[in-house]
Order: sequence, then structure tokens, then C-alpha cells
Amino acid sequence: MSFSFEPIGIIHSCYDQKFGIPRQAGLAPAAGAVLELLPPCNRPESVKGLEEFSHIWVVFVFHRNMKASWKPTVRPPRLGGNRRIGVFASRSGFRPNPIGMSAVELLQIRRQDQKLLLDLKGIDLLDGTPVLDVKPYIPYADSIDSAEAGFANKPPAATLTVEFTPQARQACRDLEKRTGEPVETAITQFLQYDPRPAYYDDRSKKHFGTVMFGMEIKWEVDDGRAVVVSIATK
Amino acid sequence: MSFSFEPIGIIHSCYDQKFGIPRQAGLAPAAGAVLELLPPCNRPESVKGLEEFSHIWVVFVFHRNMKASWKPTVRPPRLGGNRRIGVFASRSGFRPNPIGMSAVELLQIRRQDQKLLLDLKGIDLLDGTPVLDVKPYIPYADSIDSAEAGFANKPPAATLTVEFTPQARQACRDLEKRTGEPVETAITQFLQYDPRPAYYDDRSKKHFGTVMFGMEIKWEVDDGRAVVVSIATK
Repeated sequence: MSFSFEPIGIIHSCYDQKFGIPRQAGLAPAAGAVLELLPPCNRPESVKGLEEFSHIWVVFVFHRNMKASWKPTVRPPRLGGNRRIGVFASRSGFRPNPIGMSAVELLQIRRQDQKLLLDLKGIDLLDGTPVLDVKPYIPYADSIDSAEAGFANKPPAATLTVEFTPQARQACRDLEKRTGEPVETAITQFLQYDPRPAYYDDRSKKHFGTVMFGMEIKWEVDDGRAVVVSIATK
Repeated sequence: MSFSFEPIGIIHSCYDQKFGIPRQAGLAPAAGAVLELLPPCNRPESVKGLEEFSHIWVVFVFHRNMKASWKPTVRPPRLGGNRRIGVFASRSGFRPNPIGMSAVELLQIRRQDQKLLLDLKGIDLLDGTPVLDVKPYIPYADSIDSAEAGFANKPPAATLTVEFTPQARQACRDLEKRTGEPVETAITQFLQYDPRPAYYDDRSKKHFGTVMFGMEIKWEVDDGRAVVVSIATK
């Protein structure tokens, strides 16, 4: 028995690589994304009334993990990478069915040419992520104040202070002008959670890189500080 | 582009028919269900640590709707069946990809012979529902107190008082002894939300039936009352 699904939409975001993606939606609130609904789901009627909801669920595929193997246990970064927990006790993208879901703020719904676009805030998805479903966030069913979550009861703490070299800060300014996005804030918000995998083999490594906003971001980590040293075209 | 998924588990529940299923998880808290994890996901390690969570997400397939067509708009019963809203502004099971998700209470995880079973409370799923994923409910990511939900801001109100004929009440007692389930409470909780489709063509119809706990339940509706008249083997 197997079930086949076609994407109803696709994510356009500033995150071009996996490394550096915040671990749960909402941790990098400055990061925005656009969900483009694809035919035949791009008829305006299909989202009629959705504007009454402040938040929506985006159900998506961890598409880069489709062919990856999964293991019954994972080592979540937030537990220091040492403790193994079951894959179903985690929100890891490496799972038997690599389906993810994020509750995100819906800023607006708009049409552009023939496209039907949803502007989202605080989303943690890679550019190009296929979307399987959109649902309204319904507080009386989805918001469970009393829920206990053991080792995941508190959001991860920001562990790094983030600084920019003068050159990198200037590059942020230029990029902000060009894109209209809060680039410096978005970079700061994701670097402060130390996106290096916690089980990184060589903790002595100090130079890191990722791609955001189509640019190569490089930073160094030392003594509780992340210093962004360059932001350059790929 | 299409994505194929195999079920990781299957739901065993008291709901044998679609008619009568509460519209959101939690509305019929007495209703229990068992999620059986299927090979290769039934290794105990795969749920290690999940017992620290009071609630989990069950991501499932509305499997009876797989071949059904969807429409860009639906008429939710809670809106009286008159107002049309977009399918993506609803939690209807008739959607482009018939994937559902419910946050439910995890009562316990247990092994029975070679089976790995999760006992769930307040679940609204049909017996035999295929499950695609289980995730921990993480309050800091999933519980959004401030969310506004327009026409779905409040849970549907119970609109019927529920009564049982003496014969039906005795049948409940017998069934409770046999199954160990809170049959009368479960039936009361779902009937009080008036599970007749709101757009039912013939509101003058008074006799209804569904299957719960493997039994045929018949009731009559009149003047704000639902009277359970018989509970019999199918």
C-alpha cells in the first residue's frame, strides 16, 4: 500500500542550503518566504476565507531527504548531539516519510500575473521545498497549552553572539537595498542558534559557510562569538 | 513531480463509518484509539523518548477520499453548510492531497507480542486509517496562543441533548463490559455535535445510523434532542 501526492505549491525562500536552517519555525522570525500555489490549486477560490486566519500550517516534503535512509534513532542537536532518541520522538527531516509541518504567520495573500502567492513569516524551509498541503491554524484544535514536551519543553537558547566585519555589514546593507529583506537581522537570528551540527566531528573547525539570499555567507566561530566575515556572490 | 509514501502505521478505532466522526480532534475526548506501528517502524527504538511527550501529532491519509475529486471550495458544516470557503481555508478531508493531521493525547506506549502500540485519547480517525508520520507535539513551535482564526475561532457548540432509551442504555452497559470502553460517553460526545451533515438535503429526516465499536447505532433527532434507540450487532 502506498500513497502518491503531487505538490500543490512550492516555497521560495532565502535558504539555499540545508546547513543554517533554524530547527523550528519561529526561531528566525525575520526570515520570510513566499508559497506559490501551483496549477490546478492556484485558483483564488481555493484560498477564499484563508485571509481570516493569522497562521497556517504548511505541510511539506523534506525533498532533499527523499532518497536518504532513515535510522530508528537520531541525535538532536539541541540535546548536544549525544543523546539518541527515536525518530518519532524528533522533528528530524530524516524520517521514514520525510514529511514536515510548520505553523507560520500568514502575512498576506496576493496575485501576481497568473500566480497565487502566500507571504509567510518566520518560516524555516529551503528554497524549492515542495508543499503538499495548506491548512488553517485552528487554536481550539491545534494549540494545546497544557502539553508537556520533556526534553523539548523549551526553545533552544541562543548560544552565540553575532558580529559582522565592516565589509560584511556593508554587504548586508547593499543586499538589503537590493532585496528589500532584513538581511542582517535574518543572518543574526539564525547564526545565534549556532547552526553547526552539534555532532560535528571537528569542533575545532572555525570557518563555516552557507548560502542565504543567493549569496555565500562565511563566518568564523570562536569563544561564543560568530563573526560574519564575508557575504559574496556565489 | 510526485511523492510516494508507505504508511508507518494504522489506526484501530471505534469509528467504522465516516458519518459521526467529530470534526476536530478533542471534541470527543472519551473516544480512544490505538496506533499500531508497522514494520519496519515497529522497533521500540523508533519511539524512544516519545513517552516524555503528553501529546503527539498523527499525520494520516483520508484514505476513503483518495480517489474522490476535490473542489476549490467547500461548505463546512460549522458554517451552517451555506457559506463556501476555499478548500485550503478548511480542514475538510476532501482536498487535493487528502492528508490530515491531529494533535492527540498520548496515553501510553506498549508492546503486545511483536506489536508496538500507541494508546491515544480524543482521536477522530476512522478504523483502518493509514498513518504517514508521528511527531512529538512541541508547544514552543506548535502552540500559538495569539492565533486568530476568523470563522473557526471557537469550537463548534454542542447543539443536541443526548438521551438513550432503556434498551439502548442497557446495550451500552453490556458493550462497556465487553470492550472496557466508555461507550455511552463516547456516543453522547459525538451525537451532541449533531453529526448530520449540515447541508443534509432533507432536514425533516429523523432517523439516523452509524457504526461505532463494531455495532450499529441508531438514533432519532427531534426538537434539539437526539435519542439513541438501538445498539445492535451489524
